[in-house]
Amino acid sequence: MTFVIIGGDAAGMSAASKSKRNDPTIEVIVLEKTTDVSYLISGLSYNIADPHRKVDDLVVRPIQEFKDKLGIDVRLDHKVERIDRINKKVKGRSAAGREFELAYDKLLIASGARARRLSVPGIDPPRVVTLRSLEDGRRLKQLISSRIPKRSVIVGAGYIGLEMADAFYRRDVSVEIFDIESRLLPWMPSEMARIVQMEMESKGVKFHLESRLLKVEKKENKLCATFTTGTARADILLIAIGILPNSEIAAQAGLVLGARDAISVDTTMCASDPDIFAAGDCADMVHVVTGQKVLIPLGLIANRGGWAVGDNVTGKYTAVPGIVGTAVFEVFNMEVARTGLSFSEAQEAGFDAVETHIHSHSRALAYPGIQDIYVHLVADRSSDRLLGANVVGREGAAHRINSVATALHAKMGVREFYQCDMAYAPPFGPVWDPLLIAANQLIKKM
Amino acid sequence: MTFVIIGGDAAGMSAASKSKRNDPTIEVIVLEKTTDVSYLISGLSYNIADPHRKVDDLVVRPIQEFKDKLGIDVRLDHKVERIDRINKKVKGRSAAGREFELAYDKLLIASGARARRLSVPGIDPPRVVTLRSLEDGRRLKQLISSRIPKRSVIVGAGYIGLEMADAFYRRDVSVEIFDIESRLLPWMPSEMARIVQMEMESKGVKFHLESRLLKVEKKENKLCATFTTGTARADILLIAIGILPNSEIAAQAGLVLGARDAISVDTTMCASDPDIFAAGDCADMVHVVTGQKVLIPLGLIANRGGWAVGDNVTGKYTAVPGIVGTAVFEVFNMEVARTGLSFSEAQEAGFDAVETHIHSHSRALAYPGIQDIYVHLVADRSSDRLLGANVVGREGAAHRINSVATALHAKMGVREFYQCDMAYAPPFGPVWDPLLIAANQLIKKM
Repeated sequence: MTFVIIGGDAAGMSAASKSKRNDPTIEVIVLEKTTDVSYLISGLSYNIADPHRKVDDLVVRPIQEFKDKLGIDVRLDHKVERIDRINKKVKGRSAAGREFELAYDKLLIASGARARRLSVPGIDPPRVVTLRSLEDGRRLKQLISSRIPKRSVIVGAGYIGLEMADAFYRRDVSVEIFDIESRLLPWMPSEMARIVQMEMESKGVKFHLESRLLKVEKKENKLCATFTTGTARADILLIAIGILPNSEIAAQAGLVLGARDAISVDTTMCASDPDIFAAGDCADMVHVVTGQKVLIPLGLIANRGGWAVGDNVTGKYTAVPGIVGTAVFEVFNMEVARTGLSFSEAQEAGFDAVETHIHSHSRALAYPGIQDIYVHLVADRSSDRLLGANVVGREGAAHRINSVATALHAKMGVREFYQCDMAYAPPFGPVWDPLLIAANQLIKKM
Repeated sequence: MTFVIIGGDAAGMSAASKSKRNDPTIEVIVLEKTTDVSYLISGLSYNIADPHRKVDDLVVRPIQEFKDKLGIDVRLDHKVERIDRINKKVKGRSAAGREFELAYDKLLIASGARARRLSVPGIDPPRVVTLRSLEDGRRLKQLISSRIPKRSVIVGAGYIGLEMADAFYRRDVSVEIFDIESRLLPWMPSEMARIVQMEMESKGVKFHLESRLLKVEKKENKLCATFTTGTARADILLIAIGILPNSEIAAQAGLVLGARDAISVDTTMCASDPDIFAAGDCADMVHVVTGQKVLIPLGLIANRGGWAVGDNVTGKYTAVPGIVGTAVFEVFNMEVARTGLSFSEAQEAGFDAVETHIHSHSRALAYPGIQDIYVHLVADRSSDRLLGANVVGREGAAHRINSVATALHAKMGVREFYQCDMAYAPPFGPVWDPLLIAANQLIKKM
């Protein structure tokens, strides 16, 4: 059997390794359009922050290991351009311009996503950048070390934008962030978002909200970016306004697209063709809380999807019942974590949403080094069901979110969650964990 | 209505505050045999470690606040000696020797627990100590600062023993720990316990296992402790071999005792008399995993029980369905956390127990500052149900345990837990959280 995989990052290489480990007799061919496979893209901003680290440190496993140890046929510089479902073939072109054609028995589309671009004048490399690949990272790092930029402008205050603000700061590059939204981190209460914003502003980051980029010009060796709210001069301009799934070849092949134009898959990651699977940032998933399809591009989801495909193409049934969108990032000294639905997402999904947010502490009051911690919980008034959470703080926020994520998977009610017997010791929190304090407050509102 | 509470620590003062807040018209009288109420006893070892902190920093809320702000009648130095259930009265004696008698409508026994003692010759104050109260802490701290001890012997390698080893170390007192068990932390795999032991040994702590204390003598101003395995000389000897519930007055009043001679209560914390409740370290609780009654003396459990009583005596029904025994402590730089059943507890409870333990990391491999993290999971082979966990590591262990605790309350299967969508970012763990890696390994064994 020939198992062809389009895309050699998290989902693709997970599926390749898993299928080959399950059944060493199958032929696994990975077609990767770049020259990198299996890398930790989520580590890019942290890597850029550190001039002493090479971008290639982010490679999880070298290509040669996939080839030699696992017998996976990894073909770099191979861009698939067309899927012929009738004849079960993929067709494409190598970077050198050579056409190729390859038959498959099972196909995985793990083509990932690309940075969303803006169609305004002047968005030109090398100094206007996006960040999605190791190659993007290498170019940006090279730019920083060669041109020693003093000022940056970041368009977009999402995860990447905020993480890169931190990275630029560490490289002594000043940061101005512009975003079209009226506030930061719109999925959490504005009071909590303000904590993160204030932390960043204390480091000199300037925010310009409700700002749309109109054009970029070069003036006296500087980039001059004009926004609806004013202009900013910079040496580097980063566009970080989200992603678009690379689902075009799937659509052209007549496969059904789902949430946000990602490839629609069932819980076995099978697309609308029994021999074609999709996983990672190009595929949708069921959100456990709403039961709706969503596209949430995150590393664990890609890996999990890839593993499931590796099983399913080798006769081992593995389903991924769904996700809850648990995510965390670190910006300066703040841990910012979320899971499940925001208040407005809960309302949109038809829940009788009720929310609360509380301020507590990361350690017991009598313990040195105490920090603030903020918890936001959302629940459904009529069913009592917990729907989502945000946790923000200098310590203890990242891992706390996983208790709520677990509760969401278990479809726990707030009252049930409040009864959870959580760990307590003075270095790690108050007697009543901040999550329990928040749950108690939420119960009072219900 | 008169609500009398025996004992003014976590459970007692929680019940006092909650009942008074629910119904300001009731009379709440707290009878406390010591001169301290509402303190963070779990912070004692950390406090002793720091010569610049006063033991009184551990007082959560001053007595005057309970009296003035909440109108709670707190009577210190009041030791209850007898409960007269027929006439609904408690009788006792103050520290000054004055007898008192008090009628109740509802009674809460929150008399806590006392340190277990050894009946061997020479266990005499002031230099042979136990640690259960603020007064114990004040005496020990005074002893350390006045006599400047060089060497300590700790009998018992439980939480208190290990935490105090850390505290003595920070006070420049050498530590030898003796325990009758053949190994440290017997509820976790020996490989994981050894990690903790090695960490402590690297700081100079010496362990003597399978050692029983036979006698203590004074020789040349030193304590000389003779164990079955040899002798040790010290300036301070700490006995930390666990606790016994203060349930004697309950037993004398004919109330039913349960697990480990704690007062048996139902889920509303009501004892075997409809007007008498018990909560905290003197009361048992249902273990959610086994359905059996247990006595697990922990701060959150005491607070939760007290709150429930505060509700239940004021006509607001609140049940505590049960606990899973989640606990964490910090010793030197290690976080040591557990929840649910150990492998042998699972076997004893009749489960078809299967276990695994894995080694993973606290951060992504490409991220600086990475530390080892160890996870142990126990499950039931026939039902797939998750039964317990241990997590040990220099960072990220404490809060991770709560995800498993939540799963235990939800009665999740391992396969379901493995599907949980957990947070990932390079500073906080690998793409597959160590908990998920462990769950995956466990599934393979099932």
